[in-house]
Amino acid sequence: MNSTSAFRAIDVIRKKRDGRELSRDEIASLVSAYTRGDIPDYQVSAWLMAVVLRGMTRAETAALTDAMLHSGEVLDLSFLAAKKVDKHSTGGVGDKTSLVLAPLAAAAGVVVPMISGRGLGHTGGTLDKLEAIPGFNVNLSVAQFRRVLETCGCAMIGQTAEIAPADRKLYALRDVTGTVESPYLICASIMSKKLAEGIDSLVLDVKTGSGAFMKKEEDAAFLAELMVETGERMGKQVVALITDMDQPLGNMIGNALEVVEVVEVLRGEGPEDLRQLCLELAGWMLHLGGVAGTVADGKKQSEKLIASGNALEKFRRMVEMQGGDPAVIDDLKRLPQAQHTMTISSARAGYLTSLQCEQIGTACVILGGGREKKEDSVDPAVGIVLHKKVGDAVSLNEPLATIHYNAEARVIRAKQLLEESFEIGDSPAREKRPLIHRIIGKSGGKN
Amino acid sequence: MNSTSAFRAIDVIRKKRDGRELSRDEIASLVSAYTRGDIPDYQVSAWLMAVVLRGMTRAETAALTDAMLHSGEVLDLSFLAAKKVDKHSTGGVGDKTSLVLAPLAAAAGVVVPMISGRGLGHTGGTLDKLEAIPGFNVNLSVAQFRRVLETCGCAMIGQTAEIAPADRKLYALRDVTGTVESPYLICASIMSKKLAEGIDSLVLDVKTGSGAFMKKEEDAAFLAELMVETGERMGKQVVALITDMDQPLGNMIGNALEVVEVVEVLRGEGPEDLRQLCLELAGWMLHLGGVAGTVADGKKQSEKLIASGNALEKFRRMVEMQGGDPAVIDDLKRLPQAQHTMTISSARAGYLTSLQCEQIGTACVILGGGREKKEDSVDPAVGIVLHKKVGDAVSLNEPLATIHYNAEARVIRAKQLLEESFEIGDSPAREKRPLIHRIIGKSGGKN
Repeated sequence: MNSTSAFRAIDVIRKKRDGRELSRDEIASLVSAYTRGDIPDYQVSAWLMAVVLRGMTRAETAALTDAMLHSGEVLDLSFLAAKKVDKHSTGGVGDKTSLVLAPLAAAAGVVVPMISGRGLGHTGGTLDKLEAIPGFNVNLSVAQFRRVLETCGCAMIGQTAEIAPADRKLYALRDVTGTVESPYLICASIMSKKLAEGIDSLVLDVKTGSGAFMKKEEDAAFLAELMVETGERMGKQVVALITDMDQPLGNMIGNALEVVEVVEVLRGEGPEDLRQLCLELAGWMLHLGGVAGTVADGKKQSEKLIASGNALEKFRRMVEMQGGDPAVIDDLKRLPQAQHTMTISSARAGYLTSLQCEQIGTACVILGGGREKKEDSVDPAVGIVLHKKVGDAVSLNEPLATIHYNAEARVIRAKQLLEESFEIGDSPAREKRPLIHRIIGKSGGKN
Repeated sequence: MNSTSAFRAIDVIRKKRDGRELSRDEIASLVSAYTRGDIPDYQVSAWLMAVVLRGMTRAETAALTDAMLHSGEVLDLSFLAAKKVDKHSTGGVGDKTSLVLAPLAAAAGVVVPMISGRGLGHTGGTLDKLEAIPGFNVNLSVAQFRRVLETCGCAMIGQTAEIAPADRKLYALRDVTGTVESPYLICASIMSKKLAEGIDSLVLDVKTGSGAFMKKEEDAAFLAELMVETGERMGKQVVALITDMDQPLGNMIGNALEVVEVVEVLRGEGPEDLRQLCLELAGWMLHLGGVAGTVADGKKQSEKLIASGNALEKFRRMVEMQGGDPAVIDDLKRLPQAQHTMTISSARAGYLTSLQCEQIGTACVILGGGREKKEDSVDPAVGIVLHKKVGDAVSLNEPLATIHYNAEARVIRAKQLLEESFEIGDSPAREKRPLIHRIIGKSGGKN
């Protein structure tokens, strides 16, 4: 009855429920009241469900991102003259590009202040991969983070308590209320954390295919456009590459195994798909970071920095500064090794026509390489090495994959899942999926 | 990963979010787990919002009603030979029919075990009206309730802790999460409580118009059909009358004032609209209760029971058995009286073309006759007496309404709201709205 100007959560819930657009103030009030603990979880979860089912306008999405961003500290890296650029992937199987890109772009003179996450569901996490390197510390204070950035040009850490606390609280609630799956909420969650890094530009790698969260390309493109527009509304340069995750990226899945492949790529070796995607993303990072006039030039510079060993040197430096054992890089056997291996072979001759990518990720989780529950610890040594990728010819009894495992009890289900993931037909069949489906944002994109 | 057969709230939330139909078991598990306190409010509020926005099938609505009904005690009134029939109204302004109908139907030999609610928002509540009678106790134990029913044939009480506890818990959550407004949830809430009374048949009075929760007739009809079908699926006879609430029912609004009008109707007097609606609803109650072959016969019996004084006698008996002062009935001045009255007069001559019914209800709440917040206490004496109804001719300065009030501070806003509620034009204008718009269910309906 008494109409006061005070913020009432119930009004915001009802407004979103009825499909009306929330104002910037309403969204800011909701997020700050929730972060302070002034409104209860049960009101916010009702609001989140209304957002999932009603959607948000571009202005609302930007307002939510901004409110979450400003719920905590926004790093000020202006003491570093170079442009600050980051890359973010929506997550996939075998996606270890971050470990290649941070030192590669830093070697080119761009500053890369990368704050990453852990493995979730069937997808791996950058922090888990870094921690496969003995001694590597992802829990730096903000002061330590700044010091590594200043000296090395790149640093890779986990989310700190100071960064976007609203996102941490909201994400925990979304996780248990069926409200994770909303492009608007995903956009605000990703962009608020990335923009809190104090970056100038951002390259987004939005995955699509059987191993991605967004199986359909149109869903990936929708999220990509949303993130690009949100970033631009907040004054940042953002580009999104829609890239393929219909089969794992590279050949290795599992934390220590992926570090091996990272070092290979930084040595100028490694599987072609991983190498190509790293060069493409690096090209964009260097271009947006102002050290390359074009993306093509950025790719060329990146190739040279790999060939010269400078990128690998930067990686070694970062590992060392973050407490890791740099000797690993010259002697990959120093990485955690699984006790056993088991090979899966083909039951027939033909061509590998598809790989159930999410199942392969799940097989790795079952081995202990990922988490079924948030509290689970991760076994860095276990994983899967693929010997065949989609389109390859396969002979009868030819090895398809090797499982690296420690626990007999886990390998049985993992092996079964893995075997079911390989589909072998009489011909290479369907057209090869491109590595890069689309580019959204900046001049290079929107076609 | 581990697929167990155990109930997981998150799966049920996701399923409803995605618009899929929940099974009877899923709904039963959700409701019983929530009632036991095994799942948190924040999961249930997300689920409720998904229900509001995705809707429910008829089978889901019946399953929810059944689960809520069986969350508590279902009264067993089989020790009484007569049929048990109740009436429920979705709420309006000046709607005091329950106080007429319970004794009227009981006088005809039907048992009426009526469990009612309090005023909410702009609408009045049966319990508040009963409590305007000095001494009247609506908080009987189940044993006392059974005793009054056995002796008197009707009893009117508030919800007990034993009846549908799931509804009480869910309603409290809906109230603060913007999830009240769903026909499926409204249906389950009403029907679970009514069916817990141990009735055979139910007459529903679903209001439509400016003073109803459902302003549009199609929304009222949708809810009515939902409730009729839900009741029938649960083996009960249910009929719903869609009745007019575009202006207050009768002339008096306010708790003690409405008791005056109830006694008038039971004496064969009172305003025509109230009297007609009571006879119509009573006709149905007697017909479904098996004491009248047709609705018309039920109306005729009801008229006779009023004319003979038997209905009023039954009312007196119930008041007495529930601790109320029966002398009130012969001397209405014993009801609480407001200290002041104030008359609102017409600023022009013409015809009353419309009454903003919800505003009139709100004016009564402002006077103290209803609740702005659940915790508010109610002043039984205050209220509004209308001297004109829609279609009536009005002269310049002719009284339109009299306000009965106790607090000067409250009357100013109430007066203004009330004045704005009267629309006076040059002609009676639009067609007169019928008192009964539609009948849904049983043979009488579905036309």
